[in-house]
Amino acid sequence: MVTEDEAMRRAIALAARGLGTTSPNPVVGCLLLDRDGEVVGEGFHAYAGGPHAEIVALAQAGELARGGTCVVSLEPCDHTGRTGPCSEALIQAGVRRVVIAVDDPTPVASGGAATLRAAGIEVASGVRRAEAELGNIAWLTAVRRGRPYVTWKFAATLDGRSAAADGTSQWVSSAESRFDVHVLRSTVDAIVAGVGTVLADDPQLTVRDLRDGSLAIKQPLRVVVDTDGRTPADARVRDAAAPTWIVTAAETGRGPDGRVDLHAMLAGLYARGVRNVLLEGGPTLAGAFLAAGLVDRVIGYVAPKLLGAGRPALVDAGIGTIADALELDFTDIAQIGGDLRFTATLRPKPSDRPAHHLEAE
Amino acid sequence: MVTEDEAMRRAIALAARGLGTTSPNPVVGCLLLDRDGEVVGEGFHAYAGGPHAEIVALAQAGELARGGTCVVSLEPCDHTGRTGPCSEALIQAGVRRVVIAVDDPTPVASGGAATLRAAGIEVASGVRRAEAELGNIAWLTAVRRGRPYVTWKFAATLDGRSAAADGTSQWVSSAESRFDVHVLRSTVDAIVAGVGTVLADDPQLTVRDLRDGSLAIKQPLRVVVDTDGRTPADARVRDAAAPTWIVTAAETGRGPDGRVDLHAMLAGLYARGVRNVLLEGGPTLAGAFLAAGLVDRVIGYVAPKLLGAGRPALVDAGIGTIADALELDFTDIAQIGGDLRFTATLRPKPSDRPAHHLEAE
Repeated sequence: MVTEDEAMRRAIALAARGLGTTSPNPVVGCLLLDRDGEVVGEGFHAYAGGPHAEIVALAQAGELARGGTCVVSLEPCDHTGRTGPCSEALIQAGVRRVVIAVDDPTPVASGGAATLRAAGIEVASGVRRAEAELGNIAWLTAVRRGRPYVTWKFAATLDGRSAAADGTSQWVSSAESRFDVHVLRSTVDAIVAGVGTVLADDPQLTVRDLRDGSLAIKQPLRVVVDTDGRTPADARVRDAAAPTWIVTAAETGRGPDGRVDLHAMLAGLYARGVRNVLLEGGPTLAGAFLAAGLVDRVIGYVAPKLLGAGRPALVDAGIGTIADALELDFTDIAQIGGDLRFTATLRPKPSDRPAHHLEAE
Repeated sequence: MVTEDEAMRRAIALAARGLGTTSPNPVVGCLLLDRDGEVVGEGFHAYAGGPHAEIVALAQAGELARGGTCVVSLEPCDHTGRTGPCSEALIQAGVRRVVIAVDDPTPVASGGAATLRAAGIEVASGVRRAEAELGNIAWLTAVRRGRPYVTWKFAATLDGRSAAADGTSQWVSSAESRFDVHVLRSTVDAIVAGVGTVLADDPQLTVRDLRDGSLAIKQPLRVVVDTDGRTPADARVRDAAAPTWIVTAAETGRGPDGRVDLHAMLAGLYARGVRNVLLEGGPTLAGAFLAAGLVDRVIGYVAPKLLGAGRPALVDAGIGTIADALELDFTDIAQIGGDLRFTATLRPKPSDRPAHHLEAE
């Protein structure tokens, strides 16, 4: 027998297994408990177009679901998309009670709880909400803002340099950190880099298993921000390993800085189903994203090295005085190999957050 | 009853209470156990010229020390300085056994263990040696290298900026971090800053209790590296709150960069009894210290802020390519208020370390 709280913790952990493959859908995990509180089914949403978490769990539970409890990390959907509404499936299966962590904020899919209640099912909401929100932060933020969630990732020395005076940068960070970056890439829908990085380093921007160099089955979209279309024809980012979008100003229009309009670019990515973006640099592009208020989270790999000269990790973020510094909060600090990895979230300005987001917290 | 290992842990903790007030002496802690292993005396060396740890503990133990064990974090001294030799005092007190963490590396004071053995006392050495070495790292390193141990402390944003584009820097780090810096200052013998920092920020470079602003009783020596003697007559660093040394090239000669000869300056500080120096900046002076191989440890207060422009934490360390980056190892990572504080030690080049140091490890 497990408590509903324990079951929710497990549902949230299951949900995370879908990270990187469910967009434009959220990650969702689900447990089904029978009348006695025994786990009789569990599932997670593994990929867009595939069965929802509730459906997987119901299929496993079969008749044991009747009179039982469904514990699910996100409000069951109430609409017919590529799959039928989960609310109906739960009603048909005869569950007595549904426990939800986070309400669905999307107009099209929400309403599941109301449908369940109307059918006489007990519904409780808000169990482990903060934890479940964190697990779905990219999707929830993307849906609330109408643009993908953006994580800026960089590697630097203790003194904030991403390359030495002569331009060399291989390697600032440790092999363990570079491995970790590939794990991070595997959880996003798109990897964004500037044409300057492409011209300087010719990165492939793929997800690989660094133990044997093999490409992961699912590759994020590669996006090159390339105002004037300077990406070479033979750049590795154009190879067949993954899809690629070379974004030019001719396609998106120009932003206030005369370069690719980043808002328009992110809108284009959202329209393609991208919810979770990893911004990998360089420093000028990161500055443009930050100046435009388009970064949600920063992950820094800080190597225990000092250079004292060379390319800074960040330039031109539009900040002139200390009082205007962008403020963040550390959410995680870890040692990765010999490096330090921090995760920090940008403090949103009040104008960034629509009222329903504040309510959802 | 305590084990000798537990007693040594306590002795090392006691020793740390002397940090900042014992130079040119080391910090030392001592426990005396009676025949049954009960603690009958404890002490630490509190200030130069005051009684050694063993003497304090012996005074507390009195006759109970006879036949007992002395557990001490550093080899008892064998010479008469401002106080008599501890080896003789232990022999006179009739202790049966002496347990030592670290051998004394100084020719003048060492030999205590041999004297004790010659008197028929059992001597064991090396108990919790690594931990005791760490607790005395500044003094041990200073004695081994013949120059003070140097900790470079800086505060910066996530992108390595110590000031914004307009020069503002108050405050990059949090109130908690600034409080922590005063605690750090209280453990050193001298605080070093460049004249550029004095001209830009006019810091007082004192140890204060930031809760009420009161000055600490013991103040480190303030040292301004001021090649051409530009420190203003009314600079706060010249006030009566603490002693000050304005170091000019006229006094020390010039180093290879034409500025104050840092080796000569550190030799001068060593001659004054300074063993533990806190280098507080700015970025150019830190670069000169690093380029000269004169930094042992770095403590960085990293605020969760981004600037994208402004003064870097470090410049001109003489490094041109990534392969020549100075390499460090993190020894501590902590959250101080909303900031991250890291401590990292420079990896010594083989030429930095005389053989007896390697043996001592």
